[in-house]
Amino acid sequence: MVRDIKIFDSSLRDGAQGEGISFSVKDKIKIVKTLDQLGVSYIEAGNPGSNSKDLEFFEELKNIELKNSKIVAFGSTRRKGIRVEDDKNVIALLTANTSAVAIFGKSWDFHVTDIIKATLDENLEMIEDTIRFFKEKGKEVTFDAEHFFDGYKANPEYALSALKAAAKSGADYLTLCDTNGGSFPNEIYEITKKVKECFPNVSLGIHCHDDCGMAVANSIMAVEAGVTQIQGTFIGFGERCGNTNLSTVIPTLQLKKHYNCIQKDQISNLTSTARSVAEISNLALLNNTPYVGSSAFAHKGGMHIDGVTKSSESFEHINPELVGNRRRFLMSEVAGRSSILSSIQKINKNITKDSPEAQKVIDELKRLEHLGYQYEGAESSFELVVMKVLGMYTPKFEIDYFKTIGEHSVIGEEFNSSSIVKVSVDGKEEITAAQGNGPVNALDKALRKALEVFYPELRDVYLTDYKVRVLDTENTTSAKVRVIIESTDGNKTWSTVGVSSDIIEASLIALRDSIEYKLIAIKSKSTNNNLINQVNEIII
Amino acid sequence: MVRDIKIFDSSLRDGAQGEGISFSVKDKIKIVKTLDQLGVSYIEAGNPGSNSKDLEFFEELKNIELKNSKIVAFGSTRRKGIRVEDDKNVIALLTANTSAVAIFGKSWDFHVTDIIKATLDENLEMIEDTIRFFKEKGKEVTFDAEHFFDGYKANPEYALSALKAAAKSGADYLTLCDTNGGSFPNEIYEITKKVKECFPNVSLGIHCHDDCGMAVANSIMAVEAGVTQIQGTFIGFGERCGNTNLSTVIPTLQLKKHYNCIQKDQISNLTSTARSVAEISNLALLNNTPYVGSSAFAHKGGMHIDGVTKSSESFEHINPELVGNRRRFLMSEVAGRSSILSSIQKINKNITKDSPEAQKVIDELKRLEHLGYQYEGAESSFELVVMKVLGMYTPKFEIDYFKTIGEHSVIGEEFNSSSIVKVSVDGKEEITAAQGNGPVNALDKALRKALEVFYPELRDVYLTDYKVRVLDTENTTSAKVRVIIESTDGNKTWSTVGVSSDIIEASLIALRDSIEYKLIAIKSKSTNNNLINQVNEIII
Repeated sequence: MVRDIKIFDSSLRDGAQGEGISFSVKDKIKIVKTLDQLGVSYIEAGNPGSNSKDLEFFEELKNIELKNSKIVAFGSTRRKGIRVEDDKNVIALLTANTSAVAIFGKSWDFHVTDIIKATLDENLEMIEDTIRFFKEKGKEVTFDAEHFFDGYKANPEYALSALKAAAKSGADYLTLCDTNGGSFPNEIYEITKKVKECFPNVSLGIHCHDDCGMAVANSIMAVEAGVTQIQGTFIGFGERCGNTNLSTVIPTLQLKKHYNCIQKDQISNLTSTARSVAEISNLALLNNTPYVGSSAFAHKGGMHIDGVTKSSESFEHINPELVGNRRRFLMSEVAGRSSILSSIQKINKNITKDSPEAQKVIDELKRLEHLGYQYEGAESSFELVVMKVLGMYTPKFEIDYFKTIGEHSVIGEEFNSSSIVKVSVDGKEEITAAQGNGPVNALDKALRKALEVFYPELRDVYLTDYKVRVLDTENTTSAKVRVIIESTDGNKTWSTVGVSSDIIEASLIALRDSIEYKLIAIKSKSTNNNLINQVNEIII
Repeated sequence: MVRDIKIFDSSLRDGAQGEGISFSVKDKIKIVKTLDQLGVSYIEAGNPGSNSKDLEFFEELKNIELKNSKIVAFGSTRRKGIRVEDDKNVIALLTANTSAVAIFGKSWDFHVTDIIKATLDENLEMIEDTIRFFKEKGKEVTFDAEHFFDGYKANPEYALSALKAAAKSGADYLTLCDTNGGSFPNEIYEITKKVKECFPNVSLGIHCHDDCGMAVANSIMAVEAGVTQIQGTFIGFGERCGNTNLSTVIPTLQLKKHYNCIQKDQISNLTSTARSVAEISNLALLNNTPYVGSSAFAHKGGMHIDGVTKSSESFEHINPELVGNRRRFLMSEVAGRSSILSSIQKINKNITKDSPEAQKVIDELKRLEHLGYQYEGAESSFELVVMKVLGMYTPKFEIDYFKTIGEHSVIGEEFNSSSIVKVSVDGKEEITAAQGNGPVNALDKALRKALEVFYPELRDVYLTDYKVRVLDTENTTSAKVRVIIESTDGNKTWSTVGVSSDIIEASLIALRDSIEYKLIAIKSKSTNNNLINQVNEIII
């Protein structure tokens, strides 16, 4: 019997409470689209009552059509001493206009009496009133029983009465929260099992924190005890030590226990989704993240490599390709040839595993990876590398010289950043200069200004995203940086990457790739060049 | 009844199989001393048979006296078809001259037949011979039953017979390994319990991997089922996704379950030990590491901060001081006024919620946050802001002028980035220049070079981390950037922030704060200025 587990992602809400996490509205929209694509059931998108920036985001969300996910707005039960319809946070939650809401309330008696300083009875009324209010407005309601496990351990009767108040008002899910992250797997299992016995006809959820490094295990044990909704954040970030890592829970339940968490054909997109979420969140996805990290199937010990070569299951708990990851042998630096091959074949179908061209591409990629290049999130640069190696590339311009100058009298006064660029196209030279907000902006302006003389279509191109990642923090300001930029011509969007120990040079490499990609792969859409049309398909 | 749990650290052996981990002999000695100081029972120090560098290290170890820990040398059962005394790896293991050894052997039938291609019976003889050999030499022997759980699931009878062979020869510990990291907590519990019933008089151990993110929970469940030795690595690194994180397991068992893992008075050194191990291993200790990470007790949500202020157990599973960590309130849009106030009071205790100074600080913070400042991860800049508003700040220098120049002929050719900086201190001017890898590096060098003329103590200051975050990706290269730098003088570490639409100016602001903080808050430690001493307490 296959059981469905609803994945409830809170990267944008509880995740945003993680140290160093800060999303722009645009970042949030990108994450929503990424998670919807993968097919998580619920996306908890923010707390409209506590954060006015979130309201703006919910407004934008109304224009976006989702295929798989329901957007959830998060808020509290009404405050004590007022009517639910007079609580401005409750009203803000309604304004978000989502079909589903998550309402958290107290279930630990100590929190009721000592933190919100209400009576135990009034807290139950606050839960009941608030959930009834949203049910009457036709919402799907998840009740997050905050500190449920600590509450149950202190006063099981009261903790259960909080759930009863929510169930009585029609809550669709009773979600048991280990808010402080201090519970043990066997406790979670036993308490959840008792709750299931008390509420056999209500769906249960689980929400764990990783303060003891057991959030994933605790969530899995709750599933064993009967919950059908798992809350977490996609790559695990969140308040303090973070939340349940959904990119770990999903494959564990789906591949090993045969639950349905996301659609079967999406599980192979798990790794790319995790990398995208990390990229948008401006975090490095840790190498050793289960399933999706770049080291998750990296073998270093000689006996391990020998074993895996004989039979992969000897030292791998699953086949890495199932989750879109790849095996790596660290000693021999043998890259996952098959995954690279499939990308090459998107550009030229005739190249096989044994073609000398395939080896040449792999050698070049190895060289570039060694320099710090990474093509996740910069597929256009990857295509340019393949095209260059396959001889399908003619340079459209040369950058002969560039200079950046930044001059200030004192900090905060008029700033003056300018750039000089000299380019040549078919032997004709053009030199020009531009001013900008900082050296990279000045360089971007000058480069396109020079090239527009030859390629007027570049006037439509502008950058939509610019990200900087320091690769090796040990050397600090002289460390290598990786710059990823996203460009658009108003019609298509593409991403390119540059790496250098100098941020300006890294930016220029990414800018150059961006312009070349526009000129080679996009401009010539109207021509009949088959290879180019194949590249176009990848872009679309 | 208090039960003793033996902590068996394999940071130097299994940990060294993690990607990016590479220890010099000197690093290894440092880690041994650090772990001995904390009081782990066993330190698995290397594999003398497979690694000649390890033999040199064991040679050096003979000169070092340890107070608490036993050194363990690791190796395999004898190879098939030869006598144990003819196996050169066995002999290398003996040469290490440790009082304890760990011998791994196969317990999964598939590995015997398909990977080492021996008969099932011969494998049992290999286990028996090898362990008897070391017992006859007077060694304490741990038998690591590799892939025990996978083996038990495939062929329980055979897996148990491998343990029997080891027990018959006198193994002191039978350690059950979840080598591929694919097992579930309830499986680990049930299988371990059955093993304990079969071997009531032999001590059991557990060795888990984190491929499903459950290594810690699996180890805890094994303790519940009767094991008394836990293998892991101190901060969790190791092959693929890493090993059981001992810095998580130790406080979980010792503080919550009242086992003796290390001496009681050492548990408060847990955080500093984890940071030392990370430092020696050349890894950043992740902020969100349970118990010991810098975010492990960092509160960002306004309601969490309010709750912790009322009663710390409301949102903390343990008191952070127990493990030598500390509570932090993060300054951010989701934090409330109470957290700001408690930070101001660290600098001046007399300021209350209703003081006009408090309002002035809050107004200034609002203005700065609107500009894109964010003080989580940059507490030193926050302290400077408070000191400035409270009139406790006298500038130590002025930056009168700075210029950065980047010049290239073409991408990839010799790069030339330089900076000119003019500063003044008490009316005396100094102008100088420096070259660097990129404009920020050049600016950092030039600024400190100019200021060292006045403040020689700046020679000890260097940057340890440099982070760039683009704040609003819609304006792309003209967007604002937030730069956070971490500095050290070899003794203390502090973090500062700068924001500007220009990355160079943002970097310079963060650099200026870093130098000011060193000169104002750290340098004057020896003076009798009370306010300054209060600031010092925060830093320490």
